[in-house]
Amino acid sequence: DQPLTLLSGPCQLESRDHALMLAEHLAKVCADAGAQYVFKASYDKANRTSLTGKRGLGIEEGLRVLQDVRSEIGCPVITDVHTEEQCAVAGEVVDILQIPAFLSRQTDLLLAAGKTGRAINVKKGQFLAPWDMPNVAAKIASTGNERILLCERGTSFGYNTLVADMRGLPQMARTGYPVVMDATHSVQQPGGQGGSSGGQREFAPVMARCAVSLGVAAVFIESHEDPDKAPSDGPNMIPLDRMGALMTSLMAFDRLAKEDPLHV
Amino acid sequence: DQPLTLLSGPCQLESRDHALMLAEHLAKVCADAGAQYVFKASYDKANRTSLTGKRGLGIEEGLRVLQDVRSEIGCPVITDVHTEEQCAVAGEVVDILQIPAFLSRQTDLLLAAGKTGRAINVKKGQFLAPWDMPNVAAKIASTGNERILLCERGTSFGYNTLVADMRGLPQMARTGYPVVMDATHSVQQPGGQGGSSGGQREFAPVMARCAVSLGVAAVFIESHEDPDKAPSDGPNMIPLDRMGALMTSLMAFDRLAKEDPLHV
Amino acid sequence: DQPLTLLSGPCQLESRDHALMLAEHLAKVCADAGAQYVFKASYDKANRTSLTGKRGLGIEEGLRVLQDVRSEIGCPVITDVHTEEQCAVAGEVVDILQIPAFLSRQTDLLLAAGKTGRAINVKKGQFLAPWDMPNVAAKIASTGNERILLCERGTSFGYNTLVADMRGLPQMARTGYPVVMDATHSVQQPGGQGGSSGGQREFAPVMARCAVSLGVAAVFIESHEDPDKAPSDGPNMIPLDRMGALMTSLMAFDRLAKEDPLHV
Amino acid sequence: DQPLTLLSGPCQLESRDHALMLAEHLAKVCADAGAQYVFKASYDKANRTSLTGKRGLGIEEGLRVLQDVRSEIGCPVITDVHTEEQCAVAGEVVDILQIPAFLSRQTDLLLAAGKTGRAINVKKGQFLAPWDMPNVAAKIASTGNERILLCERGTSFGYNTLVADMRGLPQMARTGYPVVMDATHSVQQPGGQGGSSGGQREFAPVMARCAVSLGVAAVFIESHEDPDKAPSDGPNMIPLDRMGALMTSLMAFDRLAKEDPLHV
Repeated sequence: DQPLTLLSGPCQLESRDHALMLAEHLAKVCADAGAQYVFKASYDKANRTSLTGKRGLGIEEGLRVLQDVRSEIGCPVITDVHTEEQCAVAGEVVDILQIPAFLSRQTDLLLAAGKTGRAINVKKGQFLAPWDMPNVAAKIASTGNERILLCERGTSFGYNTLVADMRGLPQMARTGYPVVMDATHSVQQPGGQGGSSGGQREFAPVMARCAVSLGVAAVFIESHEDPDKAPSDGPNMIPLDRMGALMTSLMAFDRLAKEDPLHV
Repeated sequence: DQPLTLLSGPCQLESRDHALMLAEHLAKVCADAGAQYVFKASYDKANRTSLTGKRGLGIEEGLRVLQDVRSEIGCPVITDVHTEEQCAVAGEVVDILQIPAFLSRQTDLLLAAGKTGRAINVKKGQFLAPWDMPNVAAKIASTGNERILLCERGTSFGYNTLVADMRGLPQMARTGYPVVMDATHSVQQPGGQGGSSGGQREFAPVMARCAVSLGVAAVFIESHEDPDKAPSDGPNMIPLDRMGALMTSLMAFDRLAKEDPLHV
Repeated sequence: DQPLTLLSGPCQLESRDHALMLAEHLAKVCADAGAQYVFKASYDKANRTSLTGKRGLGIEEGLRVLQDVRSEIGCPVITDVHTEEQCAVAGEVVDILQIPAFLSRQTDLLLAAGKTGRAINVKKGQFLAPWDMPNVAAKIASTGNERILLCERGTSFGYNTLVADMRGLPQMARTGYPVVMDATHSVQQPGGQGGSSGGQREFAPVMARCAVSLGVAAVFIESHEDPDKAPSDGPNMIPLDRMGALMTSLMAFDRLAKEDPLHV
Repeated sequence: DQPLTLLSGPCQLESRDHALMLAEHLAKVCADAGAQYVFKASYDKANRTSLTGKRGLGIEEGLRVLQDVRSEIGCPVITDVHTEEQCAVAGEVVDILQIPAFLSRQTDLLLAAGKTGRAINVKKGQFLAPWDMPNVAAKIASTGNERILLCERGTSFGYNTLVADMRGLPQMARTGYPVVMDATHSVQQPGGQGGSSGGQREFAPVMARCAVSLGVAAVFIESHEDPDKAPSDGPNMIPLDRMGALMTSLMAFDRLAKEDPLHV
């Protein structure tokens, strides 16, 4: 088994310099801790709680920045896509396409993503059970693309609350596809601040440690040098200066988990 | 207050003749019961549980059939749209565009739908609270189009189960927009049959009666002459030959509810 | 089918005079509206959120007050029991023993209640499904006592929130036992105020109207002349001076529902 | 921080010999792995799903067996209590009294348990949030007894399903009381087999590993030499011959977690 991969970056792209600064810092954190690193950022937040939420740089400028991060920092990059058209365009640039949770049942989007040949990280919809994900993966695999990752990001639990059911990680792993834990969004409180989503930053490391102990392939943790000023998901981001200690800690659990795999 | 409107038809369009047969029957049922009628059917089921689920006639042929229903039966028609592009095309033909629940947070889709000037029926996502819907409606209203309907279709409740919280109906009505109860999909068991969704047909009239008693503007009830042969949602459809009795019953509750409105 | 029964009173007994005042008023409200009436109050709130919550008059004085209400107002009375010992004692005085929701799986309590020969109203635990209730009822029925009522009072839905699934009412009715809707506690927000439970008084009539439209035998609605001063459950009580209008409205739905029973 | 404690035994006492056999085996497993051990078994299952479920040896014989386990194996013992009267009686024999989840809000039971001076393990009700537990603990602490343990055993998640929210463990730890993870009952499917509860034995080690990685004081794992023949909770028990490997694995995570405590 390979060492843990960290998918991390700001929630949305803010500028080229900002992206490069974060990517450089996070790549170093991962190198020091012995983890693999993938830069993650969105060029468009297409489903903000309210219309006034900032949406990001847009696909053209966003992909240019992702391209630059890729070549200058030398790490793979991942971004989310929202339409069939975006799949082909983004697929030219990024290493991994991400299917947002709300869109995880949209057949045409899954097929278009699959056809790019890029790896696809599908987030499990907040309305899906872990055992619904083989049907989702099969849509992508029907294109001949088996480079699929399945990502837990919390399940609806009453109103404005998510819960991460840790049983879902080994359940999804039964598919044979790598499993990713999104520690940031599973502690989101969707719509919990009226016009935007709240979150519980302090619990992201809890989610990450549990998942890593179960042997997941990757964790997704958004980070920002000043989360309270981030244009989205600030309440559940980890401050950049804490990422080093967090990754060092997670890698110790990762080594132990991979020496002693759970057989579920 | 106007009498109850029934939104009904097969889940997906099967053929022109089938659509006309159902529309004619359901229009007569509504006329006899004193209800208003809108024909509802999908030209594409874009988010089937599994890839092998039938998707329907496609947008071109589907819209031709909806056009024919509209002119031959003389009733308004509603259909769902899944992309910005579809909004403009479908908006040429149908009276009401419907935003599927999974897509209820996709800003660009909501804006594109709003810009058609058609009435928009937005289904509340299974992952949303009733009080999240004003943010959704505001996205549409920002286009200058206030012809918005808000539709309850159940909320995630554990895995593979939905629950309809009746408090949500008066809560959404506080927006001033008409409220629709989708009695068919709120008794769906998503993914509950492995490769497709199950449902509890026997409880659709329960959902409808509760909602009508609270004074909703419309109910959405899918119907089919042979539900077990319907290509989708068969388990929760009402057989066509029971729709007459059901509407007669619902209209008695509708009259009572509208004479005696709840003030919540 | 018999007309609707109202179970109502203060949440907990405050004094003899207070109980008699409420019972007299509510009995008159029901007589005027054509409903049956049962006085409900607790002599002990045995499971308050926090230790400092008021618990009530205690069993001795409480039963004396219930006795007086019974003889002076001439209506049946119901109260909840928490231990086997209390069943026998309370069973001497009251017409109906109530099993609190948290205790709905305690076998010995159910058996002791059954053995009194009194009617037993069992509240469905917040952690139970409607189809779990036949097992609960069978425990009571094993004593030879079939005078059982099954009561919906909401199901856990995330944290500090309940949801009333209206499908549960006809499902429980399949047992053949009368079904009661607790419109007060199903809009409770358990623990929602830190040291006590919150509630949404404005939605109790919503719950009641839905349930009555489905043909339930009885509704449970706590009332108080000044809910904000009630020692418990104030946030979800209906002010006494609104009970007349509410019952008049509910009886119209009750007549319609019983003329046109749902067959589920 | 002390090494992990295992609370384990059969769900219900079957016989003296059976209890001694299990206790001896489990004590050795823990000694070998470096864990602390407490024997756990119930003398009465007071809230079986159905009346025909076996209830156990009864309090008198049960306490004699627990006494024998205590003196012969030399380990502390824990058992659950259901009434005030049982607290005093069981408190004479056992080291820890356990409050069942359904009873976690019953004030008099909590007070009676507290008054024995024994340590008290309170299970969080399936209907409670983690932040509701300080109110529960305060009831016990009001007796002057601060020897309190707070135990997670899953939260209601739709019907017949529980989910363990791992955020609850550090949240409850903020009280300063030791936190216990009940890995057995949090994978129970309450009422899921009609007349009894189902379970998912394969996920108990998942729950245990996550909790231990977060640094809990103890895990609760029921075990049996032949789970499918156990009179209760068989579907979620771990076979006795797998406990050695499981504890060795958990102790490695325990050491790591306690070297690197999470600060939430």
